[in-house]
Order: sequence, then C-alpha cells, then structure tokens
Amino acid sequence: MTLAERVLDGDIRAAARLMRDIDDRMKSAVTELKALYPHTGNAYILGLTGPPGAGKSTLVDQIVAAYRKKDLLVGVVAIDPTSPFTGGAILGDRIRMNRHAEDPGVFIRSLATRGALGGMSRSTMDVVNVMDAMGMDVVIVETVGVGQDEVDIVSTAHTTAVVMVPGLGDDIQAIKAGILEIGDVFVVNKADREGAERTARELTTMLEMKHPEPGAWLPHVVRTEGARGVGIEELVEEFEAHRAYLKTSGHLQRLIEERNAKLFADTLRDELFDTVFGAIRDNGRYQEILKGLRERSTDPYSAVEQVLAAHAFS
Amino acid sequence: MTLAERVLDGDIRAAARLMRDIDDRMKSAVTELKALYPHTGNAYILGLTGPPGAGKSTLVDQIVAAYRKKDLLVGVVAIDPTSPFTGGAILGDRIRMNRHAEDPGVFIRSLATRGALGGMSRSTMDVVNVMDAMGMDVVIVETVGVGQDEVDIVSTAHTTAVVMVPGLGDDIQAIKAGILEIGDVFVVNKADREGAERTARELTTMLEMKHPEPGAWLPHVVRTEGARGVGIEELVEEFEAHRAYLKTSGHLQRLIEERNAKLFADTLRDELFDTVFGAIRDNGRYQEILKGLRERSTDPYSAVEQVLAAHAFS
Repeated sequence: MTLAERVLDGDIRAAARLMRDIDDRMKSAVTELKALYPHTGNAYILGLTGPPGAGKSTLVDQIVAAYRKKDLLVGVVAIDPTSPFTGGAILGDRIRMNRHAEDPGVFIRSLATRGALGGMSRSTMDVVNVMDAMGMDVVIVETVGVGQDEVDIVSTAHTTAVVMVPGLGDDIQAIKAGILEIGDVFVVNKADREGAERTARELTTMLEMKHPEPGAWLPHVVRTEGARGVGIEELVEEFEAHRAYLKTSGHLQRLIEERNAKLFADTLRDELFDTVFGAIRDNGRYQEILKGLRERSTDPYSAVEQVLAAHAFS
Repeated sequence: MTLAERVLDGDIRAAARLMRDIDDRMKSAVTELKALYPHTGNAYILGLTGPPGAGKSTLVDQIVAAYRKKDLLVGVVAIDPTSPFTGGAILGDRIRMNRHAEDPGVFIRSLATRGALGGMSRSTMDVVNVMDAMGMDVVIVETVGVGQDEVDIVSTAHTTAVVMVPGLGDDIQAIKAGILEIGDVFVVNKADREGAERTARELTTMLEMKHPEPGAWLPHVVRTEGARGVGIEELVEEFEAHRAYLKTSGHLQRLIEERNAKLFADTLRDELFDTVFGAIRDNGRYQEILKGLRERSTDPYSAVEQVLAAHAFS
C-alpha cells in the first residue's frame, strides 16, 4: 500500500511519516499529496494567532477538548518558530498539550520554521490537507508569532481567531490598523486580569466602527480564561456561527478556491526554483556564476537574466 | 542621466526614487541595480536584531550619532513589519529618529514587509546595495521582530548585533540555542534596569561555553543605556573590533561571497516565478487551472507539474 492509501485507512504512523516527508520536501511526498487531494475539502480549518504570551496553546488545548466532547476528530498544526527569542516558551506549551496525546481522536503535529523562504505557508497547507484527508473534522492551525509569515499562514484558514491579552491597552489604537483586518473572531484571553474589560470594550468599539456592508460578518469579542476553561463554550459557538455564515453566504467556496490558488502559486514558486537551481548546479553553471561574482566579472542581477535567457524565459 | 548615474552623483532624491522602485518590484530597478553593482562592496553592513521592546531604534539612533562623530556617512534600513501587533511602537520609533532627518550625512529608509514571500531579504539587500553605491560608509539594517525572516535578513550583515534586555532572565537557558549562533556582538540594553547584571553574566557564561576554535571570534557582551547614550562608544569599538577581525581573518571576503550567492538565489526565485506566472496568466493557462481546481478535475500539485512540463522542466 502507498503512504496515501494507508493515511486514508486511518494509519496514524503513515500520516506522521508523510508529514515528515513534506517537512523534508521529499519528491515522493508530492505523489502522495496528489493521491490524497480528492479526499480533502471536508475539514473546517481554524487559524489562531496572536502575540507571544497570549496563552494561545492553552486555549487550543481547551478548544480541542470542546470539539472532542462533540465527538469530532481534531487535528492541530502548531507552527514552532525556531526564533532565538521564543523557542523556550513554545517547548513548554507543547508539553502542556500532552493531555491529548493518548486520545486517538486528536492528531497534533508541530512544524518547525526552518527558514525556508516563505515555505511555511506551503508546508502548513500540505499538512492540513493530510489531516483533512485523514478525516479530521476540525484542523486548528496555531501560529506562535507576530510576523507577516504568521498572518500569511492563518490567512488560509476558514475562520481566523486573533488572541489578545489585557495590558496591550495603551497600544490598541496604534495596532488596530492591521489587527482588525485579519480576525473573524477576537479573543481576550486571561480575562481575569486587570484591564480585560477595557481591552474587550475598545476592541468592540473599533470593530463596530468598521461599518461592514449589510449581511457581512461582524466579528465579536469573546472573553476567555484558557487556564480555567472559562468562555470556551462561547468561543466554540462563535466559531460555529462564523462557519455557518461562511456556508450560507458562499464565502466558504471562495476561501477554498483562494486557498487552492495560493497552494498552487507557492508550490510553483518552490518547484521552479528547485528545478532550475538544481539544473545549473548540476551542469556547472552555478559554479561559474559564483566565480564571476567573486571576480566581479558579473553581478547577481545579470547572472539571473542569463539563467532565465538560457531557459528561454527572458 | 539614468537613476543610477544620479545616485552615484549623490542625488538623494534619485536614491529614494530607486528604493521605491525596488519596493514596487519595477523591472527598471534591476537595470539600475546592475549599473550600481560595480560601485558596491565598500560599505560596512551592520545588522541589529532583538525582541520587541529591547530599545533597538533608540540604540540605532545613538550608533548613527557615534559614526557621524567619526565623520562617516551612515545609511539605515529599518524593516517595519506590517505586523498587526507591533505596528504602533515602530511608528513611534521612527519618529524618534527624526533628529538625524536634517543631517545630509544620514540616509534613513524604512521597508515595509508587505508579505511578499521571502521577498524582504532580497529587497533589503538591494536597498543596502544602493546605499553602498551612494557612498555610505556604514549601513545599519535594523529588524524589529523575532521571526525567521528577521534572522534571515540580518544574516547578510557583516556584523550582527543581538539586543537583549533584562527581564528575560529566566528564559535565557531556554533561548540560548538559537541566539548564540547569530550574534557577533551581544548588547544588554536598558542596563540600568534590575537584572541587567545577571542577564549580561549569564550571556557571557553561555558564550564562553561555546569553546570557539583558536583564532575564532569570541563575541562579547556590551551593556548600554540607549536612552542616555551610555555604553555606545564601547559598543561601536566592539563593532570595529569585529570588522577588523573579519578583514584580517579573510571572513569578510567569505561573507561578501555568501551575500552575493544569496542575492542571486533570491532574485532567481522571484524572477522565475514572476516570469512563468506572468506567462500562464497571459496565455490563459492559469484561468484554466483555477477552473480545474474549482471543478476538482485537477489538483494544485498536478497543475504545477503540468506547468513545469510545458516549460520543459519536468
């Protein structure tokens, strides 16, 4: 049996193996992904993002538990930045997730951001597709970070939840520009902390000022205490409300199409580069270019033009 | 006169215009960059990175002043993430830099990370090359963030300074893995704060445990108070020491070569994609692919293979 067939059969070890192959960018992984593709498109993809320290992992842990109570299968893709500044905290978060480790209805996979340029969003989409094909009803993508990459990754989710914490109060006017655009649901976590009420109120005010078109989704602010499980039920209800909205409004179909277009473009970018770079390395052209750059007889821009011309691309 | 000629003549407005064209990925910018390339390779490129709130911009401001006192021309490339979470603080930082705005010996340029996949490091290298060709003696690249992108960007600098602040104390064991690899100089900023001594001591201990090879550079820890200008002279001396080490050891030449190779690869990746994607959009193939994806008669992976095959790349 192929890996893909074993994945469709519910073989967890085959799925883990395929995800490793995806991480390693093995050629064979693409064959398996093609075979799995017709079995995708059923999972509800939920993205969670927010600044470090917002308690996202604890929240994900609670959301998993809530969906498990509904007897749904849940996949979690956690993006672990190899950032020198946050590496430690994330390891701790992962360990906390272990209470689901024994549950066969939960499949958790961490992806390390090993610095492949822009490669994370492609890998994430591939892994989500594997979980989707495995039959996961809900796939949660959690990014621990604040950069453009993270926003890019959650942009392929059906519902994006932005997790905030009290204490950002004074900055909230300043940050509103970007944050309001990406969230379908806003969470004020650690809602027992001082300032939670104010953070939630300010967020709500800013969201209301957006004046959405009639019939458009109006994001709500949900207050939670991840550590104690407070507000999780309301949060999951909000997710389900957004999901229902996506279906009835036809937006879900558009999101699925956008996601496929993005997966196509990301894959094309990587494969084109790998193919051409591999070719010039194998035929010695790359070594010539490096020599030319060293001797300053060429420059990086002209070298690229010459490679494009040699491949009839100029 | 071409833009490149005007830049070489010291025309600030032409340089600003070219940098805008680089940001917008105008085809014409490549022609100008090619013309400027023979005039690059003289600037000392200094990268600064660290977590948000470490006071990097204030520090850059002081470093600029210190190099100006030596009568050197200084360029600053500040990477402004469009991150929803840090946008506000950065705007404030930029305003603070205004004291150099009237100084013709300082050229400051902010680059917005507009989410082009991996495009930031290429744009940064291009803009650094323009500043280099303009005759800037020192070009400081400041990244405000903690992600892989930021590490990737500073990796093309000659000297990389990692800025820390007291209060990360407990986490320092956890974060050491990544942080020690990228820094040539470590800065404990806000050194008047409680815990500064301990942070500096722990960093020093960890750096000493690395057991560098004989003759290799041993990074030092410099304590600064950016806001009051304390420790800046020592910091700049440390930069100069590292720069001298790079020259005498031959590492500078290797760094320059690595930077050129990276600029070549990044440019190749972008141009290949732009060329092929443009072609399939113009000849209707992309629209066919989107239709196939919508009707599920194809999948993103097969579509990429077919495009590669059509370009004789399979």
